[in-house]
Amino acid sequence: MKRNLYLNIQEKEQALSEFLKALPYAMPGIERIAVTESRGRMTAEAVYARCSSPSYNSCAMDGIAVISAHTKGASEDHPAVLKPEKDYVEVDTGDLLLPPYDAVIMAEELIEEGDGTVRITAPAHPLAHVRPAGEDIVAGEMVLPSNHVIRGIDIPVLLAAGIRRIPVVRRPVVGILPTGDEMVDAAEQNTAEQNAAEQNAAARYEGEQSAEGDAGGAPPDGKILETNSWMFFHLVEENGGTAVRWPIIPDDPKQLSQAVEEAAESCDLVIVNAGSSAGRDDYTVHVIRSLGEVLTHGVAIKPGKPVILGKVRGKPVIGLPGYPVSAYLTFTEFVIPVMNRFLKREERPAQEAAARISKTLMSGLKYEEYVRVKLGVVEGQLIAAPLARGAGASMSLVRSDGFCVIPRSSEGIMAHEAVQVKLLRPLEEIEKTLVVTGSHDIILDVINDLMLEQNTGMNLSSAHVGSLSGLIALRKRETHLAPSHLLCEEDGTYNTAAVRELFPDEQMVIIKGVRRRQGFIVKKGNPKGIRTAADLTPQIRYINRQRGAGTRVLFDYLLKQEGIDPAEITGYENEAATHMSVAVAVQKDNADTGMGIYSCARALGLDFVDAAFEEYDFVTRPAYLELPYLKEFLRVLTSGEFRERLEKLGGYSFEETGEIRYV
Amino acid sequence: MKRNLYLNIQEKEQALSEFLKALPYAMPGIERIAVTESRGRMTAEAVYARCSSPSYNSCAMDGIAVISAHTKGASEDHPAVLKPEKDYVEVDTGDLLLPPYDAVIMAEELIEEGDGTVRITAPAHPLAHVRPAGEDIVAGEMVLPSNHVIRGIDIPVLLAAGIRRIPVVRRPVVGILPTGDEMVDAAEQNTAEQNAAEQNAAARYEGEQSAEGDAGGAPPDGKILETNSWMFFHLVEENGGTAVRWPIIPDDPKQLSQAVEEAAESCDLVIVNAGSSAGRDDYTVHVIRSLGEVLTHGVAIKPGKPVILGKVRGKPVIGLPGYPVSAYLTFTEFVIPVMNRFLKREERPAQEAAARISKTLMSGLKYEEYVRVKLGVVEGQLIAAPLARGAGASMSLVRSDGFCVIPRSSEGIMAHEAVQVKLLRPLEEIEKTLVVTGSHDIILDVINDLMLEQNTGMNLSSAHVGSLSGLIALRKRETHLAPSHLLCEEDGTYNTAAVRELFPDEQMVIIKGVRRRQGFIVKKGNPKGIRTAADLTPQIRYINRQRGAGTRVLFDYLLKQEGIDPAEITGYENEAATHMSVAVAVQKDNADTGMGIYSCARALGLDFVDAAFEEYDFVTRPAYLELPYLKEFLRVLTSGEFRERLEKLGGYSFEETGEIRYV
Repeated sequence: MKRNLYLNIQEKEQALSEFLKALPYAMPGIERIAVTESRGRMTAEAVYARCSSPSYNSCAMDGIAVISAHTKGASEDHPAVLKPEKDYVEVDTGDLLLPPYDAVIMAEELIEEGDGTVRITAPAHPLAHVRPAGEDIVAGEMVLPSNHVIRGIDIPVLLAAGIRRIPVVRRPVVGILPTGDEMVDAAEQNTAEQNAAEQNAAARYEGEQSAEGDAGGAPPDGKILETNSWMFFHLVEENGGTAVRWPIIPDDPKQLSQAVEEAAESCDLVIVNAGSSAGRDDYTVHVIRSLGEVLTHGVAIKPGKPVILGKVRGKPVIGLPGYPVSAYLTFTEFVIPVMNRFLKREERPAQEAAARISKTLMSGLKYEEYVRVKLGVVEGQLIAAPLARGAGASMSLVRSDGFCVIPRSSEGIMAHEAVQVKLLRPLEEIEKTLVVTGSHDIILDVINDLMLEQNTGMNLSSAHVGSLSGLIALRKRETHLAPSHLLCEEDGTYNTAAVRELFPDEQMVIIKGVRRRQGFIVKKGNPKGIRTAADLTPQIRYINRQRGAGTRVLFDYLLKQEGIDPAEITGYENEAATHMSVAVAVQKDNADTGMGIYSCARALGLDFVDAAFEEYDFVTRPAYLELPYLKEFLRVLTSGEFRERLEKLGGYSFEETGEIRYV
Repeated sequence: MKRNLYLNIQEKEQALSEFLKALPYAMPGIERIAVTESRGRMTAEAVYARCSSPSYNSCAMDGIAVISAHTKGASEDHPAVLKPEKDYVEVDTGDLLLPPYDAVIMAEELIEEGDGTVRITAPAHPLAHVRPAGEDIVAGEMVLPSNHVIRGIDIPVLLAAGIRRIPVVRRPVVGILPTGDEMVDAAEQNTAEQNAAEQNAAARYEGEQSAEGDAGGAPPDGKILETNSWMFFHLVEENGGTAVRWPIIPDDPKQLSQAVEEAAESCDLVIVNAGSSAGRDDYTVHVIRSLGEVLTHGVAIKPGKPVILGKVRGKPVIGLPGYPVSAYLTFTEFVIPVMNRFLKREERPAQEAAARISKTLMSGLKYEEYVRVKLGVVEGQLIAAPLARGAGASMSLVRSDGFCVIPRSSEGIMAHEAVQVKLLRPLEEIEKTLVVTGSHDIILDVINDLMLEQNTGMNLSSAHVGSLSGLIALRKRETHLAPSHLLCEEDGTYNTAAVRELFPDEQMVIIKGVRRRQGFIVKKGNPKGIRTAADLTPQIRYINRQRGAGTRVLFDYLLKQEGIDPAEITGYENEAATHMSVAVAVQKDNADTGMGIYSCARALGLDFVDAAFEEYDFVTRPAYLELPYLKEFLRVLTSGEFRERLEKLGGYSFEETGEIRYV
């Protein structure tokens, strides 16, 4: 089989600088556009006023225009009397002031006689309340310099200076070529049908039962929704370019060559996605080489290794990898610098901040690795919680507040070490974040949603590491709240024992959360007839939770009660990180059953076998109760909307919700 | 004459809060739009994944799919031999993984025999290099919460979650009604003609002579370019609304009522401009009252007093004043809060910083006054230089870096006092600003333009206060550079004497600038036949410069030489702040002549009578020579482009340009 393994894995900086050197320095150039459509564009040269404003001597007040000489000596005791059309004419602000009149008196200062004559009690000096021509703008003066990004407020001033069209830097046109036989356009759908289906989906998630497991919108098996081209489209537009998206191109060298030639012809920059890796059908690198030249194939960054930097007809052609995170990262590292060059824009380095990493990150020496993190401030210390690192973890792009870079020379970062984080969100927003680390429950999303609805900027950021790891994070002062449902095997109580054990000499607070139904998530109709742990015979494939997860503790407890050795459970070593992942594993037949909460089974239209009714609480420090966003959290936790939302989800009850226990 | 004087001047805060209370709380509501068009919009409710991603178990690598059981025990010494289609099938990243295959081995790890069989030297555990369904996104999980502003990066993830349409907060529709018989639409022009004319204008400004005085684009006398509606249009769009602009409405109550009713019918918010002051033709307040109610007419802010806050058919109708600065200020203070309410957006207070004001600001007790300032950092101290305060000074909106508010209770701020400044530009940009205070010359704009062309962010900000005040600002450490052309009457030398006098015990630096032609700016053909100061008989109207201006010092010197008493000069007391203002005063016949530099006369196509060839230099401190932006200034000052630009302007020479003199 024909495969092209990477010949020259390059350092990112080197690859980029060589690529930029190889490009023609020529900008996309200048275009003249209507001033009224120029907001957000950058001036290509200095702009000069064509006319003065005001363009004539004009009245600066509503009142009367007078001949200043006729007002000399007017006073309270000896007012001057002015006759209409002879000594004065009525004028409004903006009116033209014509000789012999050379001054204006405000309406408020006039004493009107019945007969049209007016009395004034003070003289008007020449040009009083008159705007001389050019007072605001003088013809020929520079209104805007070069390289100025035009704001809304600039536009009326340009117009007042007699300017109708303005020379701006042309937006680079970026051609986007999605490829792949397995791809289907994620945006091509009957929107009406979608609209309806989607509402049902949300509705069902909010509670009503439903037969079908999946909410729909999924591609047929073996097909993949093509979403990267839409990511590039919007990133290009966000960064000041004009994006042109090609229809999906099949894995056929001829069709791909033709498209790349077309694009190189009509665009300033071409992106080919994907087919940049070493796959059997990855023709991209051959096509670019045959049409022009390939400068780089493979860069030492992770994710993102299989990047192609090439030229066709002197135009930059960039092959980006297919995994969404790789695609995003390589776009920002290689496409944006080229766009900045076109746009004559200075590189703005991302804002950085010093943080403490909450989890050990191992990393290979082969690559410079980019790790996305969630951020929060606990006791004045910025805490970075690493998100899923997989190249396919696109949700981590949506959730991340920033990222840190593990250099190629390093094998990783140990937990609690200091790291530099590049911020994707302003610090003042991050400072309003309640950090929640521990056991997972979908109600955390609901609480965050209800906090955000208030529009105070206060929000909740949750990391799902299991109950025990959450409490350890709390002990290390890396979280405000630790959601926990740890069962004490002795007395069957929840959380108190674990807290006392982990915080021997510190008084802590348990905020009582919700009671929730824990049990076995099974396929519709429970085909394997699972009722208790005892039913988990070797031919039943189980999906477990990670170590330290309360649900795993509960499962071990049930096995113990039944006197079953974990080794007998098929799939005991297969770990999922959340209840939802357990549910989807069952739904997609990666397992027959796994333990999780009722609401997740219901969300995917699966069946559920009750095993326990557990207490899901929030552990914190007394001092943290004073934090504004923790107060807001408590308000939401005890609110009516919160109960309504949970009742729709099902499987929760509220016996002690919001009660504060010092332990 | 019918005038409506303000009955109830209100405090801004009170007027606004009462207005917001009076509005229906109803938002513009929700609309469902295509995800691919949702960037920049705000989610109206939480959005849940409709499908999982990946939607099936898929291969995570290019290589072969195998049955893990068949690979058990494979090692370097005992490789496993796999047969095509029986033990393995070739797969690419993203391919569907179907039973019996349950693991993937990377292409890089294969040893290929000629016959299609492959050898592997390590076992593959179940699900090795497999992406389980739902690894990235799980159906039913919350993808985005409420009130989330959708970014480019969110869009592919929404699509991957099977979402095609998304509920967002509807953009409020803002109707903009320009009014006034004297108004002409600033945007309505034959753009082709404009385009040409404009190029000529720029060209002429860059040097070629021209007969006509004005560069064109000006309205006929008595008419005013209507530009406010375009300011509102772009400020509305910048702030997340949809702007609808009406054609200019004449000062006729019937037509205005009709338009207001239409707008209140079809829009969420209506802006009427202007006709909100006490003018004879100001029907706006009557119209709003007759159609609905007027809550406020007149607010105690300056500029901006004549604001109308009213309601028609339950819709907010806001009357804004006509002067551009008043219009801008009242828009930001009254329209934006209402839009934020519609958009469920939290009020973001402007970033503030402590500064020292460089000039005394007197202010009346009647109003809270907003003063726009230019900002720069000198020796670590943020310096705020007040810009033109007139309600008509729209250029001050373009030039300002921030503004400070003089409370109603205060009579003003003394020079060098501390003030809080609301920033309109980020501090890191302001910190790259070379502060230049002193004598005016249009070459300062050229230098700034050439600095900005480098795209380093370094720029020059100039305040025109005259040579002497500039040197005093330098002494007070409120400027980096003081451009000066102060003549020493004893020996006819420039600047050195003045510097020595003002800085008796400090060594200073004079950066030699340019020599420039100073003289009498006169109308085309010099109708009054002015040759020297001796020709300034009483019937000649002179326009002078402000005290401390080098040009005024020069004029006084010429008068002295001719033995003329300033009192004999008609208009000696009329002061203009810049050479350009002098030129336009002559052009517009506010004066017969005034002293200024050749380039300004030429820019307006006027004639010029030489009087002196003076030295325009830049005074600074030795220490400042180390500042990066001052170095950049020196680079530009001595560059070829700079000379070329000035040779086009005419009237300059470069004998000692860039030389550094310690005095």
